[in-house]
Amino acid sequence: MSSFIVFEGGEGSGKSTQARILHKQLVFQSTPVVLTHEPGGTPLGNKLRRWLKWGRRLTVETELLFMLAARSQLLSEIVRPALDEGFNVICDRYFYSTFAYQGYGRGMDLNLLHTMNNFVTDGLQPDLVIFLDIKPEKGLIRKRGRKDRFEQEDGSFHNRVREGYLKMASADPERWMVIDATLPRHDIRERILLRVESLLD
Amino acid sequence: MSSFIVFEGGEGSGKSTQARILHKQLVFQSTPVVLTHEPGGTPLGNKLRRWLKWGRRLTVETELLFMLAARSQLLSEIVRPALDEGFNVICDRYFYSTFAYQGYGRGMDLNLLHTMNNFVTDGLQPDLVIFLDIKPEKGLIRKRGRKDRFEQEDGSFHNRVREGYLKMASADPERWMVIDATLPRHDIRERILLRVESLLD
Repeated sequence: MSSFIVFEGGEGSGKSTQARILHKQLVFQSTPVVLTHEPGGTPLGNKLRRWLKWGRRLTVETELLFMLAARSQLLSEIVRPALDEGFNVICDRYFYSTFAYQGYGRGMDLNLLHTMNNFVTDGLQPDLVIFLDIKPEKGLIRKRGRKDRFEQEDGSFHNRVREGYLKMASADPERWMVIDATLPRHDIRERILLRVESLLD
Repeated sequence: MSSFIVFEGGEGSGKSTQARILHKQLVFQSTPVVLTHEPGGTPLGNKLRRWLKWGRRLTVETELLFMLAARSQLLSEIVRPALDEGFNVICDRYFYSTFAYQGYGRGMDLNLLHTMNNFVTDGLQPDLVIFLDIKPEKGLIRKRGRKDRFEQEDGSFHNRVREGYLKMASADPERWMVIDATLPRHDIRERILLRVESLLD
């Protein structure tokens, strides 16, 4: 049985790095695995990602609709076919980001988000969510260069995003693994690998 | 008070032609008016329109999400500002197309469509819907050249679309004007103008 593993976390939490490290380790162990990310991961999804990060005049409604469209394409073109073929899938962000950023962060109605998300995922949940937790004031310092649409939001936005993640984690502790993202990178890697190996066994 | 007038109809019904004719007549009478269309009408919306018509591998979910995103941008950038400034707005297609094509045509849940559409329109309804009614077998003959994603659908799809339109019209007869699209173009133009002039008076 193939597994579906999702990384979640705020800006500068190191989740993309850890997703890549886990992918490398599984490849090294000859475990069939696919690494992908949201929003993006497909030709159309990558265009949507660029608009989401850098597009002007996007309404908040369009922002949500593009996130969902990118997810729909990713599930249809990558995630479902890979799982069906026996590959494990590692995905850097999934629908929890929508709840965290658009729901808790932007204040959109959570029931509406649930309805709309379910429309594209048809209820597909991951087996494991690895959440790299970091306080926004620490995470944002790690980000350098031009700030995208989300990184430009203020501290209270990022605090709400973090609180949203922590709420989701505590509501579903079997599925969620919360890791302190300020631990040494090596420690984080080891903890994740241990948990994933027990999942894949 | 400015008015919001929508044209709806199946393939080959002549609604885009009639929308342009009405626009010209109102301009000629020095009535402040803006002509636009869905999906499209904004820079982002026009890109989405091309994908909707010619894009490959679009899931049915993405199709709907793109329609809604194009609508969100159009309302935010064109329709609401124009109405606020005292312009009348003529729009070639609006959310009734979503109900007709995605709902009645593709069989998507109408309640879900209602929820998602309301998310982008915030309940904004036109003052008048002009529906040019034509049997699909007659309308499709009028279309020449390469067929897009919707024109390629079979006759039963287009019959369901038409029935959907007729249901919406009979449920809201005050707002809807149904015109036989096989009448001479000149007759259609006169009927529309008469109705619109009484609306704008």
